[in-house]
Amino acid sequence: MEREYWFSEYQNRDFKISYRVDKFLAEVKSPFQTIEVFENRFWGRVMVIDGLTMVTDRDEHFYHEALVHPALYTAPSPRRVLVVGGGDGGSLREVLKHPVDEAVLVEIDGEVIKLAKRYFPKLACGFDHPKAKVFIEDGARFIRESKESFDSVIIDSSEPLGPSAVLFGRPFYEAVREKLSPGGTVACQAGGYLFHEDFLESFSKGLSDLFPHACLYTGPTPTYQGGLWTYALFSTGRHPREAEWNPPVELRYNTRERFLASLVEEKGCPRS
Amino acid sequence: MEREYWFSEYQNRDFKISYRVDKFLAEVKSPFQTIEVFENRFWGRVMVIDGLTMVTDRDEHFYHEALVHPALYTAPSPRRVLVVGGGDGGSLREVLKHPVDEAVLVEIDGEVIKLAKRYFPKLACGFDHPKAKVFIEDGARFIRESKESFDSVIIDSSEPLGPSAVLFGRPFYEAVREKLSPGGTVACQAGGYLFHEDFLESFSKGLSDLFPHACLYTGPTPTYQGGLWTYALFSTGRHPREAEWNPPVELRYNTRERFLASLVEEKGCPRS
Repeated sequence: MEREYWFSEYQNRDFKISYRVDKFLAEVKSPFQTIEVFENRFWGRVMVIDGLTMVTDRDEHFYHEALVHPALYTAPSPRRVLVVGGGDGGSLREVLKHPVDEAVLVEIDGEVIKLAKRYFPKLACGFDHPKAKVFIEDGARFIRESKESFDSVIIDSSEPLGPSAVLFGRPFYEAVREKLSPGGTVACQAGGYLFHEDFLESFSKGLSDLFPHACLYTGPTPTYQGGLWTYALFSTGRHPREAEWNPPVELRYNTRERFLASLVEEKGCPRS
Repeated sequence: MEREYWFSEYQNRDFKISYRVDKFLAEVKSPFQTIEVFENRFWGRVMVIDGLTMVTDRDEHFYHEALVHPALYTAPSPRRVLVVGGGDGGSLREVLKHPVDEAVLVEIDGEVIKLAKRYFPKLACGFDHPKAKVFIEDGARFIRESKESFDSVIIDSSEPLGPSAVLFGRPFYEAVREKLSPGGTVACQAGGYLFHEDFLESFSKGLSDLFPHACLYTGPTPTYQGGLWTYALFSTGRHPREAEWNPPVELRYNTRERFLASLVEEKGCPRS
């Protein structure tokens, strides 16, 4: 008999996705979470954290492009950018497509970075970039204690459970706002469009008074719940609609037009 | 022990999605295919044909809105519209939001319509509309033998396997073109953006010379392969970009802006 291994992710109690596991590559229990890497013929390498897909080679660009570029283009000429989380390196790679002076990444779990460097070279390519500065540290504490300011802050966290919970709270966003330079922007992933309605609504409403502009937008994410993801973008300066997306950078899926089409202008939830 | 039933759909050899089956509702083996209906707490009722998800209550509007409205808005004041396939009724419902004189639906498998009427009342609501005319018949033959012309033809088929295979071939599209009134349009579903690359490329290239304008566009489809679906739109008159989307109709997700943002203008495949 041929042996079959499958990894299943329960996207909720009633629905799951399953990848055939062609090869187990790693399982690491860090002080924060369990990280696994396996190979699948269709998706390429897959990183799973605490049972949820974090990245796959084949579709990670949808997420990382959508998370990073709207915030960086909305900030006026961002020079200093902070990525909170994002240990797989995908967001850092996207930030470094822009003419920044410094891209700081603060990841609480160094094991994620180690595994990304070993198994996801296309994502981890930015870690050794001369403009990249990497700290293995709690992102919330880093923000509170930092003496520096940032033009754009990208919050590339996992679900609002476990070590990432604090990155969805109001105190964290108040601290982030303090560190933004004039016109600065913040972007974060905000859950699945169909799967996390309740969270989405309370999250965006709970923060919208902190920033002059608070918008939600969406983008396809094949291996995340519901295939359509939501992002939040907060701006202390111009509205994201006013951003020119200049200078152009190489993108595989996202465009200014697609971003604008998915943008919900008013503060609040995109669901009607 | 609590009993658990799951339905799994192999989206390809290496990936599957699974729904918890809260209640089996129907299994019908028609002369053409096996149709099953079950209930899932999250997705609502789910119709599966030959092992592939056709519709779920929760996400069917993404697909039906995306398939129908760009074609109807691109045709100048469409009065006579033909839906080929679409036995669940979702496309017919969308067509009837427009001020048409007649919406003709030709479905090869009457069992699909019966099950839709019984289990999917929100989809099947158009079958008894005074402007709807329903034929249980082979769509390709209907097109060949019809003496009438149509302003817009919506091809709402299942995969290019089994009874739908003919609906993806050049002879069928040649016959459809013959029946289009001046400025008429044709839309069809064209497969998953990530999952059916090879098919997408050959399909769109193989037909693009038949129509002055041949475009591909995409839209989210949570329960279809890859969560992002591709549609083809052929126009004998104006370019889809020129359509005004007037008069406005009630839509849950799709907008002109979203359509345009997803549109690939040039003939050919959206993949780079």
